[in-house]
Amino acid sequence: MKATVLVRLKGEVLDVQGDAVRRALGKLGFDGVTDVRVGKIVEIEIDEVHARAPDLKERLQKMADEMLANPVIEDYEVRL
Amino acid sequence: MKATVLVRLKGEVLDVQGDAVRRALGKLGFDGVTDVRVGKIVEIEIDEVHARAPDLKERLQKMADEMLANPVIEDYEVRL
Repeated sequence: MKATVLVRLKGEVLDVQGDAVRRALGKLGFDGVTDVRVGKIVEIEIDEVHARAPDLKERLQKMADEMLANPVIEDYEVRL
Repeated sequence: MKATVLVRLKGEVLDVQGDAVRRALGKLGFDGVTDVRVGKIVEIEIDEVHARAPDLKERLQKMADEMLANPVIEDYEVRL
């Protein structure tokens, strides 16, 4: 099965990359873009045995906490 | 309104970052992870006037083609 973890900068953290994209889109003639935020999407394939574990979601949250996201500046969302 | 563009490496392209994450998760004791792919999620805030444009989706696809993704190695998906 495939699980997805979305990692985004927290709202109060300045997104330098997103800001650069927003300005570049404006220069390319794409008007009306008021804000851009760039995050990560991590798609994790899990084998059948482990996919059936009742604590799968907790394990994915632990993965995100310990490795996929930086909880100081990023939020994450686990989707099964 | 907010539009989302998901950018992923094409399936046949080796995902070096995803592979490093997969191995690191194994070392941290997270078993059963057979594959990891890392992509980008670009969240674009569009003002009301431009959000009503009938060609909004086409414009977002053009943004993705011209700037957000590298069509040689990446696929993208526009979500409104």
